[in-house]
Amino acid sequence: MPLHPDRLLPPDPAVRAIARRLHDGVAALPIVSPHGHTDPRWFAENRAFDNPAALIVVPDHYVFRMLYSQGARLEDLGIPTLDGTPVESDPRAIWRRFAAHYHLFRGTPTRYWLDHTFAELFGLNETLAAGNADAFYDAIAAALARPEFLPRALIERFNVEVIATTDSPIDDLRYHTAIRASGWKGRVVPTYRPDSVVDPEFEGFVANVARLGEVSGADVGSFAGYLEAHRKRRAFFRSLGATATDHGHPTARTADLPRADAEALYRRVIAGNASPADAEMFRAQMLTEMAAMSADDGLVMQIHAGAIRNHNPMLFARFGRNAGADIPARTDYVSALKPLLDRFGNDADLTIVLFTLDETTYARELAPLAGHYPALRLGPPWWFYDSPHGMHRFREAVTETAGFYNTVGFNDDTRALPSIPARHDMARRMDCAYLATLVATYRLGEDEAHEVARDLAYGLAKRAYRL
Amino acid sequence: MPLHPDRLLPPDPAVRAIARRLHDGVAALPIVSPHGHTDPRWFAENRAFDNPAALIVVPDHYVFRMLYSQGARLEDLGIPTLDGTPVESDPRAIWRRFAAHYHLFRGTPTRYWLDHTFAELFGLNETLAAGNADAFYDAIAAALARPEFLPRALIERFNVEVIATTDSPIDDLRYHTAIRASGWKGRVVPTYRPDSVVDPEFEGFVANVARLGEVSGADVGSFAGYLEAHRKRRAFFRSLGATATDHGHPTARTADLPRADAEALYRRVIAGNASPADAEMFRAQMLTEMAAMSADDGLVMQIHAGAIRNHNPMLFARFGRNAGADIPARTDYVSALKPLLDRFGNDADLTIVLFTLDETTYARELAPLAGHYPALRLGPPWWFYDSPHGMHRFREAVTETAGFYNTVGFNDDTRALPSIPARHDMARRMDCAYLATLVATYRLGEDEAHEVARDLAYGLAKRAYRL
Amino acid sequence: MPLHPDRLLPPDPAVRAIARRLHDGVAALPIVSPHGHTDPRWFAENRAFDNPAALIVVPDHYVFRMLYSQGARLEDLGIPTLDGTPVESDPRAIWRRFAAHYHLFRGTPTRYWLDHTFAELFGLNETLAAGNADAFYDAIAAALARPEFLPRALIERFNVEVIATTDSPIDDLRYHTAIRASGWKGRVVPTYRPDSVVDPEFEGFVANVARLGEVSGADVGSFAGYLEAHRKRRAFFRSLGATATDHGHPTARTADLPRADAEALYRRVIAGNASPADAEMFRAQMLTEMAAMSADDGLVMQIHAGAIRNHNPMLFARFGRNAGADIPARTDYVSALKPLLDRFGNDADLTIVLFTLDETTYARELAPLAGHYPALRLGPPWWFYDSPHGMHRFREAVTETAGFYNTVGFNDDTRALPSIPARHDMARRMDCAYLATLVATYRLGEDEAHEVARDLAYGLAKRAYRL
Repeated sequence: MPLHPDRLLPPDPAVRAIARRLHDGVAALPIVSPHGHTDPRWFAENRAFDNPAALIVVPDHYVFRMLYSQGARLEDLGIPTLDGTPVESDPRAIWRRFAAHYHLFRGTPTRYWLDHTFAELFGLNETLAAGNADAFYDAIAAALARPEFLPRALIERFNVEVIATTDSPIDDLRYHTAIRASGWKGRVVPTYRPDSVVDPEFEGFVANVARLGEVSGADVGSFAGYLEAHRKRRAFFRSLGATATDHGHPTARTADLPRADAEALYRRVIAGNASPADAEMFRAQMLTEMAAMSADDGLVMQIHAGAIRNHNPMLFARFGRNAGADIPARTDYVSALKPLLDRFGNDADLTIVLFTLDETTYARELAPLAGHYPALRLGPPWWFYDSPHGMHRFREAVTETAGFYNTVGFNDDTRALPSIPARHDMARRMDCAYLATLVATYRLGEDEAHEVARDLAYGLAKRAYRL
Repeated sequence: MPLHPDRLLPPDPAVRAIARRLHDGVAALPIVSPHGHTDPRWFAENRAFDNPAALIVVPDHYVFRMLYSQGARLEDLGIPTLDGTPVESDPRAIWRRFAAHYHLFRGTPTRYWLDHTFAELFGLNETLAAGNADAFYDAIAAALARPEFLPRALIERFNVEVIATTDSPIDDLRYHTAIRASGWKGRVVPTYRPDSVVDPEFEGFVANVARLGEVSGADVGSFAGYLEAHRKRRAFFRSLGATATDHGHPTARTADLPRADAEALYRRVIAGNASPADAEMFRAQMLTEMAAMSADDGLVMQIHAGAIRNHNPMLFARFGRNAGADIPARTDYVSALKPLLDRFGNDADLTIVLFTLDETTYARELAPLAGHYPALRLGPPWWFYDSPHGMHRFREAVTETAGFYNTVGFNDDTRALPSIPARHDMARRMDCAYLATLVATYRLGEDEAHEVARDLAYGLAKRAYRL
Repeated sequence: MPLHPDRLLPPDPAVRAIARRLHDGVAALPIVSPHGHTDPRWFAENRAFDNPAALIVVPDHYVFRMLYSQGARLEDLGIPTLDGTPVESDPRAIWRRFAAHYHLFRGTPTRYWLDHTFAELFGLNETLAAGNADAFYDAIAAALARPEFLPRALIERFNVEVIATTDSPIDDLRYHTAIRASGWKGRVVPTYRPDSVVDPEFEGFVANVARLGEVSGADVGSFAGYLEAHRKRRAFFRSLGATATDHGHPTARTADLPRADAEALYRRVIAGNASPADAEMFRAQMLTEMAAMSADDGLVMQIHAGAIRNHNPMLFARFGRNAGADIPARTDYVSALKPLLDRFGNDADLTIVLFTLDETTYARELAPLAGHYPALRLGPPWWFYDSPHGMHRFREAVTETAGFYNTVGFNDDTRALPSIPARHDMARRMDCAYLATLVATYRLGEDEAHEVARDLAYGLAKRAYRL
């Protein structure tokens, strides 16, 4: 579908005119992407992407979960099996299946991102369908072979000022090192994401911690040594430009145990026989420990809570993680965060960014918390809510209690490189739409709205993430 | 109030014009009513309705609960008592009390349905009030005496292609048999609703199960025999056109017990001494058993969870069930449905339609579940949310994650026969309004919106319910 | 910012025109303020307010919590410490700090109230900022010295027909007595707010109850005597014009214990060694006792549930209560209220007004309860939700199930006297905006909308609170 210049802006002509003016002021701002999941290898090696299916269908769980929900087999979409059972290997066949079901995405943000990508990146202005599947495929495949579609060229073309990746503490960050050594002017920074060595229920946790000891040179036989290992790896990440950590936990629970209890708990989990309650308590304790380290080293702390991972055991057994079967759950913040906040909530030099998959907490818990505690900020709508209605609900639920300045701008949160401009475009338009309504109802001056629009599109992310 | 042709459509002229075009394309489509509560006896016997109060006030708990909330006595509205204590028997007196309080319904869907019914069915275009109560009464009473207001004539006039009723497994379906034998072309099908023989806390449960044994000819002394009785009755229902089952449970909890445990549980509940935990577990187990049967016989499974029935003990003692005192409760789906989904969630040939009274689950739980599991679909907004704002919230919360094609169109869910066209009219208008906004903000092409509008109004219900 | 006559009204020209007509019909109605927190001493003594900071910044936790969330120290804003550690005492310095951060309030209701106050009361039409801080300060300070800015003059100028304050049972109501004795025509009435003698976890509870015994002359050594003390104080409050009670509880839990159990529970809590469970049960029991008294003496009962008070222990230790660290929590009503409703829910002569900080309960629990039980009414959106979006969500979530007439109009809920007209102005505009949308979509006649608008702005509060 062709991109209309007024897409996503409010239909009322007077409000749309305001929104358009606001958007004109932010459309050309550079992209700051403080929380992303692109692969640093792409930018280190700068090789061409394989084919349209490998670029757009196979790695995107938004795409294949929808197709699966309507009866498609993941094998037919080329999703690799854990045991190596062969799956569809013809990218054009995968693409045709995807194209034939493109109507399923009507009304979804995936549709918006894809239409935007097709039109802006590849000049494809029709609506994808069975009938034009091959034409789309051929055009995209041809483009991918050209130098201006190499990863570094895309980052430059997208006007990405800085982009963060997501990395394990036991990663050697070789691609980040290579990027810095290459002389390329693009700014790609790592993010410290320690789930695999913090969550006792993560696959391979015990081995992961052992590896953490090796790469850090700290003795992880004791809790003190384990914490020291984190400190060393955080310092290493910072040396390569990291400004933030990220924590994906099933709940927002935090704890502040006496040292002896924490040490005993650590010994249980590291022995590999943590009960579910132990695991939850260890994750809880580690959020507070990580806040303590952030108070020391200045890394911004991100907490992503509330996803039940791998809800579908059949799919998990066959395809592993990230098969599109993660489901949000009801999440509590007010009591869960209290142990951490009792220690660090009043620290105005610390920044903790909260994300949720439970929108009922926006107005009831998160906005009142962030509208009070100096250490807290609210992340943008996450995952399923990175969408027009999701963004609209977020602003309406949060702004009146927390204002704009306790939020941190937009995160694109994506491994889909070509969709990055589409995602920032959506966020900027939705924020301008929201601001335009405030202006049109005389709650905010248009001059002030311009200032806020620029902060939401650019300034807040830079400042909150210290980029 | 006279019916305006643009009622419920968005006020903005440009969006309204799109919505009107979309609505023009669906306004004349036949009504498919896959989940209703009309009395099959009406269509079997085709007798005239008694009087305006008996048609519109006495059977409608939406109507009399509102009047009760403002101090009216149910006795004065003709609601029959369980013990036979006399209540108001003058239908005109009931009608006058209703009319005098018609302002209480301002802003409610009941008001919309009634205005629509008065105008479209009876040509009454004023707003009902004390002053015109008798005129309304006389006009409606006169109409009801005419042949074109007999039940079958109404079904034809409403362009109802098919309508499902709700029936107990121990019902002999005599009226359904009679309808089929009558040669009338109207299509009225039963729905298998086994609450009375599945819920150990249902009044008369033990006797009901005994009766189930009698009518099915299966030996309900064992769990295996009890399941066999269900299978036989389902087959009987299917023979009379049923395509679906329906399950009204206080929670969405499911279970998948080892056979011996299920057998032992059955023996406890059938002995009449189930604890509340036993009752909950038995209902949970039976949802999974019913899914298993649906996987075999193809009946679409509907789960309606989350109503606390009979919250008001005084009213329950005096008037029994359905006295307007059912109140929704917080409902969990993500963990509750897991046992059932672990077994049947990946079965693309099975259809399970989920309904909720807890709107917080739309975006957080139901849309992510239905946007992943092939067996799941989302039912339309139910009961208190069968309303303009309710429908709007549903589409906004669900569409971005589950799309349109994991929903199943509209259910009118009513025992109020004259309101059926009003209810479908509301749903069609609200869906066109939603689609028009997508078109007006350039998220969807108008050609695609026409296709979706027809699916939401007609196609999805037919396909999802296999009608 | 100058006040636009169409502020808060819907942007669409046709809808705005309807809303403007509706608002014209209610803009000049007197203010009925049945639930407020102004200090009766102001009206008894009628002395000038001290200075701009003392009027607008220091007493308003909405204001200083936002500044605190962005790193300001409460000491620098003049918030007094419990231990008397000196804080900023220069009101102009406080005012400058506030002004320099005025942009933080963009999009918040505080901004709306302040802009309204500055413009309407002080003729200040610029947007407050660092650059005009002194000019604002000087203008406000000069105004406060003039007789037309004395408390009684403000009440008259604001067209306040009646305003309720909030008072402890052990208060001697001397200022209320003085107001009545003064011959001033303004109507200021007390409200019976017994938290300090009902909640065993309230600071000084045991001493408070002892004092209750003294002021009432009842023997609070027994539960019966304690209840008698309440009855006597309620009668005293009624003698000074009170028509309502108010109950701020962490949850909505109610209980109806056997008398002997209640007596035993009372003896435990009055001995000062209540467990948390005891405290919760005592509060629960007392809600039911208070309902029983209201059924007798006709005082309207208000229940405000769901705030976790003093979430920040550091701030509580330093500044005490009301330091802006109260956070809402998930709240249940359906089961919590059942013991009370089982006894009094069907009493149409009793009025219980429910408030919530958990908006998820509006449509799921509160509207269905109030749309059924004759004793229940819904209070307006409270605290964080006393805001444009909050009001909009309330009407959209509540109206379709409970209608307009199970709500009670607006409460300003404020200790900020100058903001009272701004708050009622916001509520009237938002209600007219909502009604205009119903009219513009042909769901309600404009004549009816005018009637509803007047009821929401004036009539419902007078009738519900028996003023």
